[in-house]
Amino acid sequence: MTDIVTAAMIVIGDEILSGRTKDKNIGHLADIMSAIGIDLKEVRIVPDEEDEIVAAVNTLRERYTYLFTTGGIGPTHDDITADSISKAFGVPCEYDSRAYAMLEENYAKREMEFTEARKRMARMPRGAEHIDNPVSLAPGFRIGNVHVMAGVPAIFQAMLDNVVPTLKTGAKLISATVHCPYGEGVIGDALGKIQKEHPQTIIGSYPKYQDGTFWTELVVRARSEEILEPARAAIERMVGGLADTSAGIGAPRVTR
Amino acid sequence: MTDIVTAAMIVIGDEILSGRTKDKNIGHLADIMSAIGIDLKEVRIVPDEEDEIVAAVNTLRERYTYLFTTGGIGPTHDDITADSISKAFGVPCEYDSRAYAMLEENYAKREMEFTEARKRMARMPRGAEHIDNPVSLAPGFRIGNVHVMAGVPAIFQAMLDNVVPTLKTGAKLISATVHCPYGEGVIGDALGKIQKEHPQTIIGSYPKYQDGTFWTELVVRARSEEILEPARAAIERMVGGLADTSAGIGAPRVTR
Repeated sequence: MTDIVTAAMIVIGDEILSGRTKDKNIGHLADIMSAIGIDLKEVRIVPDEEDEIVAAVNTLRERYTYLFTTGGIGPTHDDITADSISKAFGVPCEYDSRAYAMLEENYAKREMEFTEARKRMARMPRGAEHIDNPVSLAPGFRIGNVHVMAGVPAIFQAMLDNVVPTLKTGAKLISATVHCPYGEGVIGDALGKIQKEHPQTIIGSYPKYQDGTFWTELVVRARSEEILEPARAAIERMVGGLADTSAGIGAPRVTR
Repeated sequence: MTDIVTAAMIVIGDEILSGRTKDKNIGHLADIMSAIGIDLKEVRIVPDEEDEIVAAVNTLRERYTYLFTTGGIGPTHDDITADSISKAFGVPCEYDSRAYAMLEENYAKREMEFTEARKRMARMPRGAEHIDNPVSLAPGFRIGNVHVMAGVPAIFQAMLDNVVPTLKTGAKLISATVHCPYGEGVIGDALGKIQKEHPQTIIGSYPKYQDGTFWTELVVRARSEEILEPARAAIERMVGGLADTSAGIGAPRVTR
C-alpha cells in the first residue's frame, strides 16, 4: 500500500470520437481507481486504427503500472483490439482454445450459428489470460500489465470487478446488488440523491430489457461493509417505496 | 470542404482523472465536429501537470488541423493551462490588457475585489486572441491552431459556438434557445425522446439556478433552418405542455 500505483486507460472506438456513442467507462474507471488507491494518470481515446492503438498501448504500458483498454473486442470487422494488442506485444493473435470451446458450446446451446464473426471474439494474443465476462460470456484478456475489456458499460464494469482483486494495492471493493423492477427514468433522481448522501460508495445502474419488460440492476460498491450497508439499505428502501406507491410490480429482490 | 480537416482534444484536470467530476465536454465536441465535417481523431485527458500538458499540446497541435483544450483556466493555483500553453509555444504568459481591463471593470461593478486569483484569469500567451465567454466573461483564447476553453460545460459550449464559424470547413451551425421554467429532472426523458426523433440536431440542456429558482436553457443546434425548426418547435411544445399540466409557472419564453 505504500508504493504509488499508477494507471492509464485507452478508449478504443470511432463511435466515441464521432459522438455517436457517449463514453461512460472513463468516469467509472476513475471512480474505481480512486476507491482502491490507484492514481489514474492519463486517458486516451483513439480511433479503430491499428497503428494508433499500437502506439498508444506501447507508450502507456511502459509509463504506468497498469493499462486498461475498453472497446473493440466484439465480432465485427472494426473490432481490431486483439490484433493491435498482439502486435504491440510482438506475439501472434490466435484463437484461444478455451474461449473458442466456451463460445462454441454456448452458441450451440442457444441454437445459433457460430459464425466467423462470432469466432473473432475467441481471438487473443498468445499467452493472454482470460478476464471473465459474466454478462455475455465472450472474455476480455490480460497480457503483461494490460487489461483488455469490453466497451459496453455493463460488461466493462463486470469485467473490471473481476480485475480489481488482482491489482496490487491491497485494496478490495465489495458490492451488493439490488434488483429494481423499474427503468432508469423512474429512479434516476432518487438514486442520484442516494449517491450524494453516500459519497464513499460507487453506485451503478444497469438498465435491462427482456421479453417486453424493463428493469434495472443497481450495484453499490464500497471499501467496507460499514460503508456499503447503509447505501444498500437506502436503495432498497427507495425501490420498496416505489413498489408501494406505483404499479406495485412487487417487492425488490436483493442479491449479494 | 474537400480537404480533410482533423482535430484533437485535450481535457485538462485532475478532477476528471479522480472521478470527482464527470467529463461532459468530449461528447459535445465530438457531436459538433461531426456536424460541421471535422474528423475528431484523438482525445487525451491529462492531469494538472505542466510537463504533461506541454507534451500533449506539442504532439497534438503538430498532428492535427485543430487542437481544442478544456479546463484549467480558472482562478485557482492548479489552473495552469495558460502557462502550459505559453511554454508549449515558447512565448511569455502575461496579463492580456483587454482581458484585465474587462475583468477589473466587471468586478468593480459587482463590488467584488479583483483579487490576485481573479487576475490570473486575464493571463494568456503573448499574441493570443480572445475566445469570448458570454456566460461568465473571463475569456478563453486561441494561439496558432490551439483553442483554449473552459471546463465548465455551459461555458465550454458557449465558447465553442464562438469558435465554430472561424474553422475552415465552410460548415456553419445555427442555434435556437428555448427557455424552460423547469429543472432537468422534469424534462430529461421528454428531451431525450425529442433528440432521438431529431437525430441531425444537437440538443443541449443547461441547468440554471438563481434566487431559489431552478430553470433550464434548452439549445438546439443544426446545420440548417429546415433541420433546426422542427426540433425547436417540438421542444417548445413539450415545455408548453408541461406549463398546461403542472405548476403553471408560465408559458415558455423563446429567444433566437
